[in-house]
Amino acid sequence: MPRTRVHNLNISLDGYAAGEQVTLDAPIGGAEGLFGWFDGRVIHGVDKADAPITLDRALISLWGQGVGAEIMGRRKFGPQVGEWPDDGWRGWWGDEPPFHTPVFVMTHHPHPQIDFPNGTSFRFVDGSPQEVLRLAREAAGGPDVRLGGGPSTVRQFLQADLVDFMHLTVVPITLGRGVSLWDGTRDLQDRFSIESVTAPNGVTHQLWNRKV
Amino acid sequence: MPRTRVHNLNISLDGYAAGEQVTLDAPIGGAEGLFGWFDGRVIHGVDKADAPITLDRALISLWGQGVGAEIMGRRKFGPQVGEWPDDGWRGWWGDEPPFHTPVFVMTHHPHPQIDFPNGTSFRFVDGSPQEVLRLAREAAGGPDVRLGGGPSTVRQFLQADLVDFMHLTVVPITLGRGVSLWDGTRDLQDRFSIESVTAPNGVTHQLWNRKV
Repeated sequence: MPRTRVHNLNISLDGYAAGEQVTLDAPIGGAEGLFGWFDGRVIHGVDKADAPITLDRALISLWGQGVGAEIMGRRKFGPQVGEWPDDGWRGWWGDEPPFHTPVFVMTHHPHPQIDFPNGTSFRFVDGSPQEVLRLAREAAGGPDVRLGGGPSTVRQFLQADLVDFMHLTVVPITLGRGVSLWDGTRDLQDRFSIESVTAPNGVTHQLWNRKV
Repeated sequence: MPRTRVHNLNISLDGYAAGEQVTLDAPIGGAEGLFGWFDGRVIHGVDKADAPITLDRALISLWGQGVGAEIMGRRKFGPQVGEWPDDGWRGWWGDEPPFHTPVFVMTHHPHPQIDFPNGTSFRFVDGSPQEVLRLAREAAGGPDVRLGGGPSTVRQFLQADLVDFMHLTVVPITLGRGVSLWDGTRDLQDRFSIESVTAPNGVTHQLWNRKV
């Protein structure tokens, strides 16, 4: 059975995983400190950067393993709100989005599909978490589905009990405000086995696996 | 610059990484306890087993990332000693050796190359660690070279200062005898940065990266 997996979701000590307002200049909405430790070069493998193979990088490299599609919230794709403007926006990632798979962007507003030569295709879909997950699984064709965030999207799927695995990183900073992953959730730990290890830089990696 | 990497080298609390005598019935030479924790299914990725994604499995999955060739000692390939007998031996792994790359088997005795349809080819070479590493790098053609063990082979390369990375796992067992990784080495830690984390099962993962 394919899994639904969350990877590299950075959370401050006070529970925030994104800033309050995403703008063109602030893709993380002012919570950029969450990424201070993060080496995104190794999401496709520790060999993708000429860097020491640290615990951080080893765990970051799980991101792409056996994943055939991603689901993301609209805010992860772009800063626009409401109807999509005709502004030529193709995501934050330029000509080489790192996904290399179908990516389902959850939005109530229709938008034509965007395809990139590297295998990334953004498909804009409206529907419940269950419905969108069904589409993503179908597109993945066997491999797992990654739930790419942001935190509100992950929270929706958690509340619908659709998440099989999460790699969360608790970053030793406080933000004071932002979008909380935990808002309105309760006793999530009852549904998961949780392993927790701390890297020398103070980042705590948590591996949440759904209990069987 | 391609790295020379050691992965998943299991070591007992008393420093042994293999038993004393490898036989057909005892590939690890009586030190099978070293592998009690080890889930080899995930060496090519955590998605290769329908299992929780634990710290152990995440780190085991580094094994295949960006590796283009392996070097192994003769004892890892088979239990024979001296001249190679004409016994049809093709390694411990049956028709599907997990390597999928050229594998250089270090031996003083000549042996014809053995090729498998899955990309594994065993090539038998005599030479110093430097010479064998040069051949393996050439065959890898860019990606890293994995130094596959056993412990005596890894020790040779350590003594020649040819190792860039090691993922060692200290397994909470004592063996009393066997082949020690550390025999005759000294102050190895001076040449490496070392991170160490312990999984809930008591296995300590150490990531050794050559200091730059």
